[in-house]
Amino acid sequence: MRVAVLGASGYAGLELLRILLRHPACEIAAVTSEQRAGQPVGEAFPALRGQLDLVFEAADPASLAGKVDLAFAALPHSASAPSVAALRRAGVAVADLSADFRLRDPGVYREWYGVHPAPELLAEAVYGLPELHREKLRGAGLVACPGCYPTGALLPLAPFLRQRLVEPTGIAIDSKSGVSGAGRKLEEGYLFAELDENVHAYKVAQHRHGPEIEQEAGALAGEPVRATFVPHLVPTIRGIATSVYARPRRRLSAGEAHEVLAEAYRDERFVRVLPPGETPRLASVRGSNFCDVAVVADERNGTLVLLSALDNLVKGASGQAVQCANLMRGLPEETGLLEAPCAP
Amino acid sequence: MRVAVLGASGYAGLELLRILLRHPACEIAAVTSEQRAGQPVGEAFPALRGQLDLVFEAADPASLAGKVDLAFAALPHSASAPSVAALRRAGVAVADLSADFRLRDPGVYREWYGVHPAPELLAEAVYGLPELHREKLRGAGLVACPGCYPTGALLPLAPFLRQRLVEPTGIAIDSKSGVSGAGRKLEEGYLFAELDENVHAYKVAQHRHGPEIEQEAGALAGEPVRATFVPHLVPTIRGIATSVYARPRRRLSAGEAHEVLAEAYRDERFVRVLPPGETPRLASVRGSNFCDVAVVADERNGTLVLLSALDNLVKGASGQAVQCANLMRGLPEETGLLEAPCAP
Amino acid sequence: MRVAVLGASGYAGLELLRILLRHPACEIAAVTSEQRAGQPVGEAFPALRGQLDLVFEAADPASLAGKVDLAFAALPHSASAPSVAALRRAGVAVADLSADFRLRDPGVYREWYGVHPAPELLAEAVYGLPELHREKLRGAGLVACPGCYPTGALLPLAPFLRQRLVEPTGIAIDSKSGVSGAGRKLEEGYLFAELDENVHAYKVAQHRHGPEIEQEAGALAGEPVRATFVPHLVPTIRGIATSVYARPRRRLSAGEAHEVLAEAYRDERFVRVLPPGETPRLASVRGSNFCDVAVVADERNGTLVLLSALDNLVKGASGQAVQCANLMRGLPEETGLLEAPCAP
Amino acid sequence: MRVAVLGASGYAGLELLRILLRHPACEIAAVTSEQRAGQPVGEAFPALRGQLDLVFEAADPASLAGKVDLAFAALPHSASAPSVAALRRAGVAVADLSADFRLRDPGVYREWYGVHPAPELLAEAVYGLPELHREKLRGAGLVACPGCYPTGALLPLAPFLRQRLVEPTGIAIDSKSGVSGAGRKLEEGYLFAELDENVHAYKVAQHRHGPEIEQEAGALAGEPVRATFVPHLVPTIRGIATSVYARPRRRLSAGEAHEVLAEAYRDERFVRVLPPGETPRLASVRGSNFCDVAVVADERNGTLVLLSALDNLVKGASGQAVQCANLMRGLPEETGLLEAPCAP
Repeated sequence: MRVAVLGASGYAGLELLRILLRHPACEIAAVTSEQRAGQPVGEAFPALRGQLDLVFEAADPASLAGKVDLAFAALPHSASAPSVAALRRAGVAVADLSADFRLRDPGVYREWYGVHPAPELLAEAVYGLPELHREKLRGAGLVACPGCYPTGALLPLAPFLRQRLVEPTGIAIDSKSGVSGAGRKLEEGYLFAELDENVHAYKVAQHRHGPEIEQEAGALAGEPVRATFVPHLVPTIRGIATSVYARPRRRLSAGEAHEVLAEAYRDERFVRVLPPGETPRLASVRGSNFCDVAVVADERNGTLVLLSALDNLVKGASGQAVQCANLMRGLPEETGLLEAPCAP
Repeated sequence: MRVAVLGASGYAGLELLRILLRHPACEIAAVTSEQRAGQPVGEAFPALRGQLDLVFEAADPASLAGKVDLAFAALPHSASAPSVAALRRAGVAVADLSADFRLRDPGVYREWYGVHPAPELLAEAVYGLPELHREKLRGAGLVACPGCYPTGALLPLAPFLRQRLVEPTGIAIDSKSGVSGAGRKLEEGYLFAELDENVHAYKVAQHRHGPEIEQEAGALAGEPVRATFVPHLVPTIRGIATSVYARPRRRLSAGEAHEVLAEAYRDERFVRVLPPGETPRLASVRGSNFCDVAVVADERNGTLVLLSALDNLVKGASGQAVQCANLMRGLPEETGLLEAPCAP
Repeated sequence: MRVAVLGASGYAGLELLRILLRHPACEIAAVTSEQRAGQPVGEAFPALRGQLDLVFEAADPASLAGKVDLAFAALPHSASAPSVAALRRAGVAVADLSADFRLRDPGVYREWYGVHPAPELLAEAVYGLPELHREKLRGAGLVACPGCYPTGALLPLAPFLRQRLVEPTGIAIDSKSGVSGAGRKLEEGYLFAELDENVHAYKVAQHRHGPEIEQEAGALAGEPVRATFVPHLVPTIRGIATSVYARPRRRLSAGEAHEVLAEAYRDERFVRVLPPGETPRLASVRGSNFCDVAVVADERNGTLVLLSALDNLVKGASGQAVQCANLMRGLPEETGLLEAPCAP
Repeated sequence: MRVAVLGASGYAGLELLRILLRHPACEIAAVTSEQRAGQPVGEAFPALRGQLDLVFEAADPASLAGKVDLAFAALPHSASAPSVAALRRAGVAVADLSADFRLRDPGVYREWYGVHPAPELLAEAVYGLPELHREKLRGAGLVACPGCYPTGALLPLAPFLRQRLVEPTGIAIDSKSGVSGAGRKLEEGYLFAELDENVHAYKVAQHRHGPEIEQEAGALAGEPVRATFVPHLVPTIRGIATSVYARPRRRLSAGEAHEVLAEAYRDERFVRVLPPGETPRLASVRGSNFCDVAVVADERNGTLVLLSALDNLVKGASGQAVQCANLMRGLPEETGLLEAPCAP
């Protein structure tokens, strides 16, 4: 398939290039960047020197129509929707990595991001978590790739919500994220001297990924779900480790809890259920499309601890987008995505 | 006061030296280390070259009797109790940094650490969290300095437990710790190449500090407390950031919750209650004896989020031990401990 | 080609697996590890869970004879040579990552590593730096893959030595290495708490890679070369950045110096000569087989500064070994090695 | 003494506050910051919450005249000189941390920084390296505190230059610096995601500290000195490790070379000469005013390797400024500066 990457000069965009370069069925036909328009990719990003003979262009969705089968949009929220709309009008399939089509309710979107720029497309958009929505993703024209935090929270929670094994309220989601999740933002808080040897919570119970998690969790549970989402910044470039605290609705032994996870993901290539006693580690998924999950039951305290680790730029963004694109275009889902983690 | 530091070559021991060197009322009379006996301190630890003209000795508690007023014991658990017992028999006051005198019930100790080596001393030991047990610490002969994790969990929780504002069960404590908490242990998991860019939970709901937290929390609440304690290792040398999730017993607004904390620690020198909207950061307490705390009320989900940050080697160990020692010997509590954090 | 990896549980061994798993012409037929014998690979190394259905075996070179075309030996020096000898007797081609066949003079080997265990094979061994010895590597039976430091020092130096543009003595080589170069060694100095936020030189002018550099540099120059090699440890997992200081034999302008490098590596896939004004960065080669090089001429002070950056586990070890193996077996040299760097 | 800190909200300014807070003879009477004017210090910098009851003011040098005995100016170069001039006119002693009074020749200043804003003060300024210029610093009215790199390069070089033991040309200075040296600059290159796991050279032979080093080195040698200065950025917050390569003018054994250093710094409190076999480490000086130095003679290659490690914010900036201020005001030089390094 011939693809374009819009917003290719951000971290998610660059990660898309890294993955697509090794994808045997993809040809990168165009890369766009407002900031870098006119610059050869390898000049702007020395890591890609000699890898890709393309020049960043200013985005012109219409002109991409004849050139590509599918576009990855890695643009900021609100900026993405108009480009996506133009691409869809021109008949181009789109895997959108922004937040623009994740929230099904434009009212909720407005609360967190502002007035929705293209609400007419919401009905078409499929939430791009293949392990949960695989069938809808096959042949889809517009996919809203999930946020990095929601992916890490939903994957371990999903089987317990679906089987109504945990209370739908009082859930606490404690995530620890590397800083590339914030993109290449020039803010004091993202400077090395401010972040190294530092850890802190931020936007406690007020992060935009909170409503996204609740929406998808509610759909899985078939009833409203309430979760307190607390993201933390940790001094790593990549990775999100998530610990979810939930109350089981009935007594669940450690063995049973593990079996629920194991059974749910038995045939999944990218979700690895760890054996009892092991815990997910960022280092084991670095640079890869895997999400490692595990569960511990603290029966004494009526608490289930669900754990996950993923690379926010891969399974949390660009790898997942490619996984979706493979489904959208009828390719084997894992194409280009089986690269082993970069450990150590 | 003349002091000895037993087990001075570990990380907590060295941090004691760093603090005591600037303590205006302390003279370091002896430092012991089995491994380093015979070696000058500045040779073994180049950071201290030229700072301290002492040679590590093998520990001989009896011989210290005449030489020191107080001993800091920074020995491994189980190894500490016999030395402490000998020192107490010889009339030396002891601030013990091991776990040996923290758990009041020798049965619980046995479950987590093995048979207690000196149960007869348990009754004398005061739990060394000055903000909670100040009066008992004045003039005490034996102080059990708290673990690093319990300090970070108990300080923000204490006022809510005391005032019975939160449910005593279903509490989740999610801590992120730097690696110096593990000491200078030669295990593969503590190598730089294994830990950098890595985050993972360990000993989920099975860490030894769990029962210690529940013991002290229960004493504060006046009823049994159940907490699921989940420690995580993060790639920092120092620091513990803790996020506690608890259910309020009655509706608590953000403002009320903040006021509970603010009121409780109004006169405390080392517990800094952050204004609403700010979150504790490891970088703001690095190298110092401060513990920063904050609270966020997620009323939508009936969840209180209590946050803290401390330096595990200072307020989580050696600084707190000195704070206790000051109280034990009648010195102003903050003596030697007001050094500003090392930021950035 | 069917391959075995001996010593597959070390960092270089694991990196070989990571590369070979994506190598389209390779089948990993056996992996050996004395320590891990009997353990499935994915159990021992969670990063590889689900990637490779193999169990570590104890090394038995003879038994590999029928099973594989080529063996990668990632064993400690001195332990490697006997295995290599057995494999060669059995007709298996070997890419050896140890130091055992790098030094051509067994007397020099003895000085740095001890009595050579298989001097009779030294004549057969080809030094595995494809950019310098490509023709000899085609079809070779035994290749001595270079050390990580020599690769970083020799690539920028080579064209200047060959063309006798720099003085052969008084060269200073200042390298900054990530800690994975030391392997998974359990030494205090490699603990996270000792290494993070730390930088220091070690084995100043006394590192084993010094004589290796001088041997190869001398061969390039056609006369004895003297270099003071000073390795430093920096707090990164991967990567070696090298700055070489040499005196030009005649006046060399910045432009001329750049042209020497550019000309020498014009057709090389893995050596990227940066344009004037750019300097090599570890982040731009992380996880990849690239070595970025640059040169700055300080005419004022009669000094040429040669710079390089590579990933010590890839171009400095396992990637280079695969590059050699491709040449040994007649495959296109870049097969399996074009993966883009993992940046950020 | 009553002091003011101008530009107190930068990293060097904050480090001054950290040191002055513990300085027994100092009272901080005013702190200025254009950006933060009107903000209480503890609000702007949570690390200092509760430590210092001051509000940042806009700088008004004239108004400080009556209030303080000495001002520390931690302002950007060019911006500093006019403030310094105003303070001097008002009779206030100044320790200036900017580059404005370091270069004695306004022509050289112009080449690197622009037209000098107050050349009339150059004659009065003393270069603030107490180990080299102690007598001139006693009672001085204006001190130009050295750059962080020059301090690390000059301290190990000084005795060899003074005794004419090394050639004055062909010197190479390879420095590895933590990122706080760049201040709190909002540039992409200083983001955590760009810098962690990264090392690179920058401004090769073109850094502003180059001419400063050559000026002072020349003064020590009594003849022009030529040095190629190559700074590197490493992923640490603090610290500069420097390796200097020089050619001895006559044969110098390892023992003799060590003796030269040992003899030169025998009575210095802040320069610690390491015993043969040890190398300076950033971790051993972190947060402290020490500069550790060592020397290795590579007689085979006619090269002397001089090594140093210091904390760029302390001995490389603010600690050194306080050391100078102590001398300027007749206090014991080490007052407030003996705090032990923060290790680990």
